[in-house]
Amino acid sequence: MIDKLEKKIYKICENAKKASLKLSSSSISERNKALLLISNSILKNQKQILEKNKLDVNFAKNKKISYNLIDRLLLSEDRIKSIAKDIKNIARLPNPLNKVLNKIKRPNGLKIYKVSVPLGVIGVVFESRPNVASDVAALCIKSGNSAILKGGKEAKNTTEFLISLIKRELSKTKIPPDAISSLKSYERAATNILFKMDNMIDVLVPRGGKKLIESVRENSTIPVFSHLDGICHTYIDKFAKKSMAIDVAFNAKMRRTSICGATETILCHSDVAKTIMPDLINKLRKVKCVVKGDDKVRRYSSNIIKASKKDWETEYLNATVSIKIVSNLQKAISHINQYSSGHTDAIITENYKNATEFLKSVESAIVMHNTSTQFADGAEFGLGAEIGISTGKLHARGPVSLEGLTTYKYLVKGKGQLRA
Amino acid sequence: MIDKLEKKIYKICENAKKASLKLSSSSISERNKALLLISNSILKNQKQILEKNKLDVNFAKNKKISYNLIDRLLLSEDRIKSIAKDIKNIARLPNPLNKVLNKIKRPNGLKIYKVSVPLGVIGVVFESRPNVASDVAALCIKSGNSAILKGGKEAKNTTEFLISLIKRELSKTKIPPDAISSLKSYERAATNILFKMDNMIDVLVPRGGKKLIESVRENSTIPVFSHLDGICHTYIDKFAKKSMAIDVAFNAKMRRTSICGATETILCHSDVAKTIMPDLINKLRKVKCVVKGDDKVRRYSSNIIKASKKDWETEYLNATVSIKIVSNLQKAISHINQYSSGHTDAIITENYKNATEFLKSVESAIVMHNTSTQFADGAEFGLGAEIGISTGKLHARGPVSLEGLTTYKYLVKGKGQLRA
Repeated sequence: MIDKLEKKIYKICENAKKASLKLSSSSISERNKALLLISNSILKNQKQILEKNKLDVNFAKNKKISYNLIDRLLLSEDRIKSIAKDIKNIARLPNPLNKVLNKIKRPNGLKIYKVSVPLGVIGVVFESRPNVASDVAALCIKSGNSAILKGGKEAKNTTEFLISLIKRELSKTKIPPDAISSLKSYERAATNILFKMDNMIDVLVPRGGKKLIESVRENSTIPVFSHLDGICHTYIDKFAKKSMAIDVAFNAKMRRTSICGATETILCHSDVAKTIMPDLINKLRKVKCVVKGDDKVRRYSSNIIKASKKDWETEYLNATVSIKIVSNLQKAISHINQYSSGHTDAIITENYKNATEFLKSVESAIVMHNTSTQFADGAEFGLGAEIGISTGKLHARGPVSLEGLTTYKYLVKGKGQLRA
Repeated sequence: MIDKLEKKIYKICENAKKASLKLSSSSISERNKALLLISNSILKNQKQILEKNKLDVNFAKNKKISYNLIDRLLLSEDRIKSIAKDIKNIARLPNPLNKVLNKIKRPNGLKIYKVSVPLGVIGVVFESRPNVASDVAALCIKSGNSAILKGGKEAKNTTEFLISLIKRELSKTKIPPDAISSLKSYERAATNILFKMDNMIDVLVPRGGKKLIESVRENSTIPVFSHLDGICHTYIDKFAKKSMAIDVAFNAKMRRTSICGATETILCHSDVAKTIMPDLINKLRKVKCVVKGDDKVRRYSSNIIKASKKDWETEYLNATVSIKIVSNLQKAISHINQYSSGHTDAIITENYKNATEFLKSVESAIVMHNTSTQFADGAEFGLGAEIGISTGKLHARGPVSLEGLTTYKYLVKGKGQLRA
């Protein structure tokens, strides 16, 4: 059985690889045309998409799957419109390919061009959000990459129908439909086989919860773009403006507690703790945020649960915050470099020197001054849709969009030069 | 024992990591000053370096180590001068850090800067060339990275002395001497421990033979910049100029047969094979190159050994070449995309369209038109010294120099913006 499954998946990967070679030399107008066809087709087939989606939602309801998950799975007319619009927006972004990144003319007359090219084949493993399939497909087509998509079982009918629509539209263009494919097999064995296809898949992007990401990192031999945790910090400096500090820290924690850019730990300089902490803690408690803190914070309000080392290491992803008082900027930076997951960390200060020091010394993908960590997002950065956020340092860091899906090659042009 | 060794290596890595945080916020003038001090110190201590080197060479001679290896190990006054000069050249290169790679102003007033920063800690495992230690140290200092060096046992005295000189000069600057360290332990167990320090080492660069690289790739959990093979091709197109085709193909194969950029397989269009093959084969044979070929090539000269599939997959690294006749450009591209190691491949043609198609469709790190694959080298590209050549597509591809040793982070500057 496994052998048969392996052959089937090998074939899907092989076809994706072949398609990627054609796709990489397609023109940008052809790729944009494909995106517009797909966007229109999704609007036109709205009724059928909703039908397919209903199958998935009913199945999930029968299985008593959590409300959160069903909400992520559920499509509506509005959500479909927004999916179609996202694809149109990607069509409008500049071409990420064939950019000359560096141009060198050598004394011997050789001309060397460093030029952006697609990575090749991107594998994306996601859970229940159907829009991941269309976003990923659109980003990959735009950047000249093939994509192999493996969605969650719960979204099976919706995902497969969306992918079939995409393939149908591709067949009307010069882009081979194999450029976008579904793994189609939903069993764990299939995913494990996919994870070993390092000969044909260049990057894996897991989109989903921590368990999924851990499983990909542990079991795959393919490089991964991902972030395991979003343990983000907001540091209120000695020179912070009180109202800004409270508003930004509150927004960073509470706007949406379930996203990776939500602040989990607030650090506060001891000189301003007395002024700022009581009001901030009150504001958080008014919206039922659980406040944990070190001994110093606990002086400013009653009933603050004592925070332990484990709290500094925890991504709550809910209405809980840990607060720590630090005696200077350096201690804040050290705490962050020790406990941050390298995603996003912010400083609130009116002092330019301290801001500069913080932005320089904090070793995270995104560092912020006087704003909310909740802005850590490809669309908020103006990069268009994102395929994911990476906390790794290699290749792509922070929100990964079109540029992160490219690599480069060197073109060397000569007139018969020989090396001496 | 292992436990003690593990602690020792952990400490070295931890110190390198701490030093990297300081190094990353050092000024370019401080880093260049360190490089000039090191360069001068190497010249001043030439006598002692040669003494240490003699110890290694004598040891190697007693162990009856191959002439090739001893030659790589051996230093002379000239070689030391060239090492010192290389470091000075790196000091002259532009600062790879704090470059603004992208600048975005958002409608809400947020300013987003994508800025180049060091990777962190680079582990380099090399064999007998002492200049690898100084080149790597210089590239890492310039790019703000710490380096942990593990050389071959045969070069132990020379390498350790060079590293101690470097550390001594660093202690005269604001750069912590722990930025450059030797693993000091030469046993296999030590290397295996180093390979698992993925918490503290960001990239491993193996510099040496295929066995070393395979061992690093198989045993390490740290990302690797490397190329396993250099199976490079030179394709002589239907529209190639005969004299250029012969000269370039000959240079690509024979200038130095032991380097990774040497051509291993020559492909030739069937329409020009009759004109070009006999002369090219004669020229190769005059310098004792062994010629293997497919049945079609074997018509053009006697005693051509029949090439098998295995030949297309072999990096000879000596005076052997395999030749294949292809009936069109597409067949040449397909052969290369199947058998090339993704390092460097060239086309010889006067036809612009064919050249463009080749450069676009061949999926290698370096693609060339009308010149010798032997030019695949960081210095020949004008990038300064290289830390290695990478055939991977992620992060760094082709010759890896200063830019490949950097990553980036996003700096987001606000005035209290909250996310809605």
